[in-house]
This record gives sequence, structure tokens and C-alpha cells, in this order.
Amino acid sequence: MKDFAGTPGTITGFVLRIAQFMFAAGSIASMATTSSFYNFTAFCYLIAAMGLQVIWSLSLALMDAYALAKKRVLHNSILVSLFVIGDWVTATLSLAAASASAGITILYFHDIGDCTIVAECFKYQLAVSLAFLSWLTVFPSFLIMLLLLGF
Amino acid sequence: MKDFAGTPGTITGFVLRIAQFMFAAGSIASMATTSSFYNFTAFCYLIAAMGLQVIWSLSLALMDAYALAKKRVLHNSILVSLFVIGDWVTATLSLAAASASAGITILYFHDIGDCTIVAECFKYQLAVSLAFLSWLTVFPSFLIMLLLLGF
Repeated sequence: MKDFAGTPGTITGFVLRIAQFMFAAGSIASMATTSSFYNFTAFCYLIAAMGLQVIWSLSLALMDAYALAKKRVLHNSILVSLFVIGDWVTATLSLAAASASAGITILYFHDIGDCTIVAECFKYQLAVSLAFLSWLTVFPSFLIMLLLLGF
Repeated sequence: MKDFAGTPGTITGFVLRIAQFMFAAGSIASMATTSSFYNFTAFCYLIAAMGLQVIWSLSLALMDAYALAKKRVLHNSILVSLFVIGDWVTATLSLAAASASAGITILYFHDIGDCTIVAECFKYQLAVSLAFLSWLTVFPSFLIMLLLLGF
């Protein structure tokens, strides 16, 4: 297995995991502090998907930090297969949750034009944007793991 | 480059493309025959994404049919790179469109519980289901192309 930027146990891999964690945590914080997110299935699903993302990315970030500190190589093919599956599942759920929430946000604030509380609207939009950013940082991880497995 | 099931110019590859085309075309047909899809940005986006999917899958199916008839091998690395990018773009757009539409369908028919015209509700749900099936058949194509490029 080759060693390139973003693989497990590298600085870039660690930075990618921290970025995923930060965006997902920010999305949860923004959504969970609105007053009526529980009325919308898609917004609850966004919180669940981002929660899974937070757990997954934080675990992998800690593993990367351990590998960096101990100078261990994490390119075991079983471990990388597990990372590929985990990254694929979290990336797919994140994109689906972000899109479903974006669909409702656009419906309310563009199609119907019903945005009475400006602070709430901003929070919904921020949560959706952060969820998309989280997906944008998970997808490269998934591709890197897949290429690492292919080589 | 190796030759395995689902690669360009094989029977399985051709069947996958036809399945993608059929699901996407079915989704468009189901959504476009509803009376009020144009009031929802997400439903219009679903039709656009499925339209792109129809064009892409039909083109690749025709290319596969030509390769099968003429017994030509389509494993040129530039061509496969193009297939990877195209499959990734269409798969991502399909999942995003299906999720956004699913978010609104669930909002209307579960959260609000406002389904006055049963035939319309069924058509929305059918369009979303077919869009998800279309994504489920594009994603394997994307993975196969990526593995073909990696080998």
C-alpha cells in the first residue's frame, strides 16, 4: 500500500478528520438551537446523520493522532476496508440529510417565502451549509481510502 | 486494465446503464404528470437531475451496445476517467435530488399530514422511489469505473 496525502496516520488525514468533525458539530449546534426543528423529520434526520459523522470523524481523528504520536502505520487492509465502508456510509447519509434539509429550507424561504423569524432562518441555512461542507470533506477521505485499497 | 462484470463494453455494464435509464425516465414521467410540481424547487430539480441521468445513461448504453456489437474494448484510460467523472456527477446529483424531494414528500404527507389528492401523493412518492433506485444503480457503475482506473 502506498503512502500519500490523506491516508490514515498522516497529518493531512488528521486535518481532514478534524474538519469533518468541526463542520458536523457546527451543523448540529446550529440546528439544535432552533426552536422548532423537531417538527420537521428532515431536520431531525440531519441531526442524527451529523451525530454519526461527529462520532465517526472524532474516532478516526483520535486514531490518526495516536498513529502520528507513536509513528505507527495504519495501512492494514482489513482496517482500510472498514474505513472505506464507514466513510461511504457517513458520506452518503450526510449528503442525503443535507439535501433533504436544503429542500425544506428552500421550500419555506424561497417557494413559500415564509421567513418570519430572521434568526431562525439563518440558523437553518447555516446548519444546511455546514452539513454540505462536512460531506465535501468526507468524500475525499472515502476516495483516498478506496484508492489505498485498490493499490 | 482488468475485465470484470460491469466494465464498459460488457453485458452487465449495458444492463446497468439500461436500468439507470429506465428508473430515471420513470421518475421524470411520474413527477412531470403531477399537476403542481412546478411550485416546488426540489421537484423541478429532481426532473433536471433525472433528465441529465437519462441523457448520460442512454449515451453510455448506446456506447456499450456498439462495443458489444463490434467486439471493441473501451478500456482506454482517458475514456474511463471521463466515465468516472460523469458517473460521480450524475450519482451525486441524483442522490441530492432524490433526498431533497423525499424531504418535501415526508414533510407534506407525514409531518403536516396534508395529502388531499391520493393519486398526486402516490405519484410524488413513486418519483422519489424511482430516483433513489436510479442512484442505487449509478453508484455501482461509479465504483466499477474507479476500480478499473485504479488497477
